[in-house]
Amino acid sequence: MDSQTLANAIRMLSIDAIVKAGEGHQGVPLGMADIATALYRDHLKFNPADPTWPDRDRVVLSNGHGSMLLYSLLYLTGYTQVSLDAIQGFRELGSICAGHPEYEPEAGIEVTTGPLGQGIANAMGMAVAEAHQRARFGDAMVNHYTYAFVGDGCLQEGIGQETISLAGHLKLGRLIFLWDDNKITDDGSTQLSISEDVAARFRVAGWHVCEVDGHDSAAVSVAIAAAKQDPRPSLIACATVIGRGLPRVQGLRAGHSARLFSDDAAAARALLGWPHPAFEIPSEVLSVWRTFADQSRPAYRAWQAAHAALLSSQRRQWDRQQSATLPDGLVACLNDYKRRALSSNAPIAGIIASAEINDLLGPWLPERLVGCADLEAPTSHKRGLTAFTPDMPDGGYLHCGIREHAMAAMANGMAAHGGVIPLAVTYLAFSDYERASIRMAALMGLAVKYVFSHDSIGVGRNGPTHQPVEFLASFRAMPNLYLMRPADAVEAAECWEIALGIDDAPCALVFAKQDLVRVRAPGLSGNPCAHGGYVLQPAQSGPRQVTLLATGSEVAIACDARARLEALGIATAVVSLPCWELFAEQTEAYRQDVLGSGHLRVGVEAAVRFGWDQWLSPSDLFIGMHGYGLSGPAEQLYEHFGISAEAIVSAVQQRLGQ
Amino acid sequence: MDSQTLANAIRMLSIDAIVKAGEGHQGVPLGMADIATALYRDHLKFNPADPTWPDRDRVVLSNGHGSMLLYSLLYLTGYTQVSLDAIQGFRELGSICAGHPEYEPEAGIEVTTGPLGQGIANAMGMAVAEAHQRARFGDAMVNHYTYAFVGDGCLQEGIGQETISLAGHLKLGRLIFLWDDNKITDDGSTQLSISEDVAARFRVAGWHVCEVDGHDSAAVSVAIAAAKQDPRPSLIACATVIGRGLPRVQGLRAGHSARLFSDDAAAARALLGWPHPAFEIPSEVLSVWRTFADQSRPAYRAWQAAHAALLSSQRRQWDRQQSATLPDGLVACLNDYKRRALSSNAPIAGIIASAEINDLLGPWLPERLVGCADLEAPTSHKRGLTAFTPDMPDGGYLHCGIREHAMAAMANGMAAHGGVIPLAVTYLAFSDYERASIRMAALMGLAVKYVFSHDSIGVGRNGPTHQPVEFLASFRAMPNLYLMRPADAVEAAECWEIALGIDDAPCALVFAKQDLVRVRAPGLSGNPCAHGGYVLQPAQSGPRQVTLLATGSEVAIACDARARLEALGIATAVVSLPCWELFAEQTEAYRQDVLGSGHLRVGVEAAVRFGWDQWLSPSDLFIGMHGYGLSGPAEQLYEHFGISAEAIVSAVQQRLGQ
Repeated sequence: MDSQTLANAIRMLSIDAIVKAGEGHQGVPLGMADIATALYRDHLKFNPADPTWPDRDRVVLSNGHGSMLLYSLLYLTGYTQVSLDAIQGFRELGSICAGHPEYEPEAGIEVTTGPLGQGIANAMGMAVAEAHQRARFGDAMVNHYTYAFVGDGCLQEGIGQETISLAGHLKLGRLIFLWDDNKITDDGSTQLSISEDVAARFRVAGWHVCEVDGHDSAAVSVAIAAAKQDPRPSLIACATVIGRGLPRVQGLRAGHSARLFSDDAAAARALLGWPHPAFEIPSEVLSVWRTFADQSRPAYRAWQAAHAALLSSQRRQWDRQQSATLPDGLVACLNDYKRRALSSNAPIAGIIASAEINDLLGPWLPERLVGCADLEAPTSHKRGLTAFTPDMPDGGYLHCGIREHAMAAMANGMAAHGGVIPLAVTYLAFSDYERASIRMAALMGLAVKYVFSHDSIGVGRNGPTHQPVEFLASFRAMPNLYLMRPADAVEAAECWEIALGIDDAPCALVFAKQDLVRVRAPGLSGNPCAHGGYVLQPAQSGPRQVTLLATGSEVAIACDARARLEALGIATAVVSLPCWELFAEQTEAYRQDVLGSGHLRVGVEAAVRFGWDQWLSPSDLFIGMHGYGLSGPAEQLYEHFGISAEAIVSAVQQRLGQ
Repeated sequence: MDSQTLANAIRMLSIDAIVKAGEGHQGVPLGMADIATALYRDHLKFNPADPTWPDRDRVVLSNGHGSMLLYSLLYLTGYTQVSLDAIQGFRELGSICAGHPEYEPEAGIEVTTGPLGQGIANAMGMAVAEAHQRARFGDAMVNHYTYAFVGDGCLQEGIGQETISLAGHLKLGRLIFLWDDNKITDDGSTQLSISEDVAARFRVAGWHVCEVDGHDSAAVSVAIAAAKQDPRPSLIACATVIGRGLPRVQGLRAGHSARLFSDDAAAARALLGWPHPAFEIPSEVLSVWRTFADQSRPAYRAWQAAHAALLSSQRRQWDRQQSATLPDGLVACLNDYKRRALSSNAPIAGIIASAEINDLLGPWLPERLVGCADLEAPTSHKRGLTAFTPDMPDGGYLHCGIREHAMAAMANGMAAHGGVIPLAVTYLAFSDYERASIRMAALMGLAVKYVFSHDSIGVGRNGPTHQPVEFLASFRAMPNLYLMRPADAVEAAECWEIALGIDDAPCALVFAKQDLVRVRAPGLSGNPCAHGGYVLQPAQSGPRQVTLLATGSEVAIACDARARLEALGIATAVVSLPCWELFAEQTEAYRQDVLGSGHLRVGVEAAVRFGWDQWLSPSDLFIGMHGYGLSGPAEQLYEHFGISAEAIVSAVQQRLGQ
């Protein structure tokens, strides 16, 4: 069957869905229909009957607004979740065919996309995960490509260049971008905002670049074949006509997403020679589309055989990693660290405790892939790892360069790929650069571990740009993200245990730069941090009069204040609140038990109060920051901003009238 | 005097300060000392006696960790605030010589830098402001260059490429980057993370590129001269040795920021032939440095004359813009809009109300520079403006492309430049891409107006990636940012009036995509939004039993609920809270008066509860979002998530036991 007819099936399904919804983005599905046809017909390794087959090729629709391209492809190739009904419900509440693709691997949707540039960085992460696992498990088990549909926006966004640069540096030869080079963005001609030769940027970064007519399906197919052979990552720049097939808007600004009406659908039917009714793909066309997956059957069977032929230890390892389960013995290893931490009186920087824990985890979790944005020395999470390089893709540490945004989105792609546990490490103050990607992980429920160091004014002399006073609050506001801020090495081990156990949401593990004294005494059983908050030190001198609530490095200050208050005869408990989200998940009774009631509470955190009021009443106290920090030694800053045991004691005394 | 000696004054001041502080980043000041000497000796137009002279050249230290370079230069050239005492207090609490440069134009510090890449985008904004004002006021008034010291990090960050691309497109010929091409980052060799020819990226984007030995001051000077002549923006790629002058670390990873000791200072003195004691610049050296500003005297005098020679109407306009005062009549214009809005019953999309208001402002505020990230049609803020282009730099609208991050940082640079009022427009959900820059504006207190559309699940079918459920909270957590979310066109006008009046902090003006019905009735005097919150509708049927607190598009829902509750005999007030930050600045008495006490409060906002507890007690209610949104029609989403008058009424009835 000719390519045109196959591609027009995508076009008409997309037009019909967009007309019915009353909105959508026709530009991508119509412009890229021929490209997608070439990919699925001639190259893609996939199995709609086993959508999450680990060795499938990955397809990312980075220009996510063109979601009907993906839904059309998934329906045409036989992903059952993407039914005709679902397509007719495009953009309706409850349909899997949402306005933008929403992560649903069982339906063939590999990642959520929408904010531009995220998808291509996700794709880079998938290609890294592929290369890493191929190095570890061999070609018979891991041998797939990652394709991304890419729009102009993805390549204008800064994260796009970070991706181009890093993927070129890492020589990710299995990464192939299909660029919808249509010269149109939402505002109109790309000439309004860009003058450069975009493909040249890829060449500069060491990519294989190929320029083709995006409506010549055979030429695109040849280009993909060349890209697959090339050891470099590949850009296939496809010259396209936006909205091709719609006489009124094709090639124009309106081709991007101007509203379509039934007249447009009729005109498209006439232009494309497509006599079939809306939402009807004739069986002779559909049956051809449905054969494309068949071509992957031999590979699928070979893979099953390879899996069965693995040495049993290797198969166990593979299966464990794929199912994201933790090895037996891991918790014992963490408990061992905890035991040692409990018996040590040596202060240790929070981030170094995390580094030590990760070093111990190394042999247990070879699937850890640690990215860091040029802060190897101050964060120390490279211990026990070699660098992932083109020649040594089994290395577990990625020098991501000063590219936080791509690092975070790449980690998301690794998590979506499966089989690996991605960490992304940087200073908390730089997390703003990553925030859009962290949100995407939270939205998708990807188990990425974002590790942050230098978590407060404890940063000291580097000053307010580096002192993240509002970041704890801004992450706590983000749904489905678990933020943990351990108070000492014991809590660090406990938080790592919890974080590794959360496989359906990202975690932000936030550590102090400065030394932390041990606040936890032996005696508490289990993992108290798993409740999010717990009574670290009960009131001693009588029934509780005051509860000090603190997190991270301020827990020690609260403990100091408690000792002084108890000495004054004021019965004071200290509650450590390392993870608010977990604490909020506990029963009301548990929370009341921990927080106490009917007496004074004091929140203590070297950050703004915003959000603390959920644990405080208006008459309670907060000891923390009220604005940005300053440059100076950390200890002086704590004094300067009144975050000290003395300040707590004096505020409590004043409030209690003592 | 030879360049070496002049440059070594920078080196030794920097080394002495860093040794004394016990930390710092020697790499930049030592590596770029010769470059800086060339710039200040041969080219820079500046006047330390009038640091904020509007026509001075701008210097941005984008690699802000190298702050001692800037402090050394400011001291050597005679900026009195940067005294030897201040330098000896480098990184100490209270010294102007903070770890990273903190915005202080009177001291010669043009912007705060630290997070990499921000500075070069700021510099682009300054160059845009310069070109725009030159077009409007002529060469005699505006005729300066913007220089940026740039490190590898600035160019690896995505915002860096956004800047390169956009500045090249806009042909900002007065923008000159001095790149410290030292092949070293914090992790070690740049080869760890980057393989590309960075200068080639600039060439691709249409920049003039010149490569020189960064330690050959004369060659750098020639390159700067060529850059000044070239009509394109210029990159001067300066090959340098990081930490040059420190025998132990120069050229090495440790040259970046490894701790220096007094032995290092002694070794540097020996190597550089600098016999003078610590912090002592011999008078013969200092006096040469102090002559550099003298070369700008003729230009300074000519500028004063040009200013005096302006037509009085032009001078008034110039002076008004420079002093960031608003024209008489502006408030009347806004009031006029408000009056019309008060008498209209036609619903209007929030963002369109803002667009209309801006259109009216146009003639009053020719200094508005509106950037938008490829969303001209859905945000409509181009009305009445032409595009800023290389040929038409008097245009007030910047097609920023799909580059939110650079847009925001560019707006910061415009504000820091002075004389213009920058707006940056995009969807609220994309503000995560801008967040790092918005934080910098808040930290500096720059009066940027960030305008956001599509502010909630009201976005509808585009789905959860585009529905900013946690963004209100995350911005409210950010110190020194005023977030405003008007409920209707009347509040929109009032919020714009307030925002334009705030000249020492950024504002985030957040508008609904969807139509808003008018909630304000005539009768309230003044600008009630200026209090941040106010009683929009008092309780009617008796003493207040319930207060509904809402913002933006949910105020109408609250008003609807109030009508139903009143009909049920439940005396209910509606409080609109468009700006929490302003409300928090009111007296406790005012707030109590508005919020009432001793009765039920209900917060209503199509966003997460996080932060709302500062206005609610634990027994109060919140009607809003509890996680991410969904793709579907907006009205259905409001119903689905239970944000409706019915839901409020039923929750209130349940709570009151009625």
